[in-house]
Amino acid sequence: MTDHAILCDELTATWHRDIPLAAAMSIGVASFDGRTLAARAPLPPNRNIHGTAFAGSLYSICVLTGWGAIWLALREQALNGLIVVAASDIQYRKGVAGDLVCSCTPDASALQSGLELFRTTRRMSIELGCTIDSGDKRAVTFKGKYVVHAPHA
Amino acid sequence: MTDHAILCDELTATWHRDIPLAAAMSIGVASFDGRTLAARAPLPPNRNIHGTAFAGSLYSICVLTGWGAIWLALREQALNGLIVVAASDIQYRKGVAGDLVCSCTPDASALQSGLELFRTTRRMSIELGCTIDSGDKRAVTFKGKYVVHAPHA
Repeated sequence: MTDHAILCDELTATWHRDIPLAAAMSIGVASFDGRTLAARAPLPPNRNIHGTAFAGSLYSICVLTGWGAIWLALREQALNGLIVVAASDIQYRKGVAGDLVCSCTPDASALQSGLELFRTTRRMSIELGCTIDSGDKRAVTFKGKYVVHAPHA
Repeated sequence: MTDHAILCDELTATWHRDIPLAAAMSIGVASFDGRTLAARAPLPPNRNIHGTAFAGSLYSICVLTGWGAIWLALREQALNGLIVVAASDIQYRKGVAGDLVCSCTPDASALQSGLELFRTTRRMSIELGCTIDSGDKRAVTFKGKYVVHAPHA
């Protein structure tokens, strides 16, 4: 396994072990190329009353994918930080009638600046965008502001 | 049982039957006085990696409470509409270390105008605010834009 694949398995295991709702969603890492993280969850446990994806599931896969993108960046640089989301907004443009697949591509320079700040101040914040497509159309756009701080000694 | 209590039981049952993630959250109606709807979910199935409430659970209880407030208003007026959330934003101000309790008090005149429009056009939209407190402090503020349309004949 590549380092990326090992980290992705660890991220999926972390979600399932520490966040019961993530386990209930059956979320997992779909792919990670070192920059773009994609997460996937099957429709059945995430459906709503209309038979499409539940707004709360669509939100949750977005907030977890953003969280995961930061978690991977920290791990790749051997940094230890607690990641929380401070604020977010989401637009639902189209229903999702199949698997939920969410992508997050952090801005490389913003992420690098954030990590450098975190090394010196033990704190950083970053805005991330996540998207979910349905067929070839954009179904969901999400923006989240995340804060990372070092664990208390 | 009062009419309100019967409707509230039906709302909780609808959430659990039709939205698997709502069942996984163990969400239920806590109270409804004809204007303010409060929903509650226990912490354990909704915890995150830090032992406080998961951001996705806090979002989901908000989006469901707003949805439920419209569902109750429609049912009280014997109207049948499909309710979807179109956009929302949420701010996390403080962690929630106990049960998640979310309140929604729709603006009475906006709701009434919306329902009147729905009767004539078979469509309405409304913005709702939901809040979650932790102790005596505001922990979460949520705003959602919901769209209601009549079922296709």
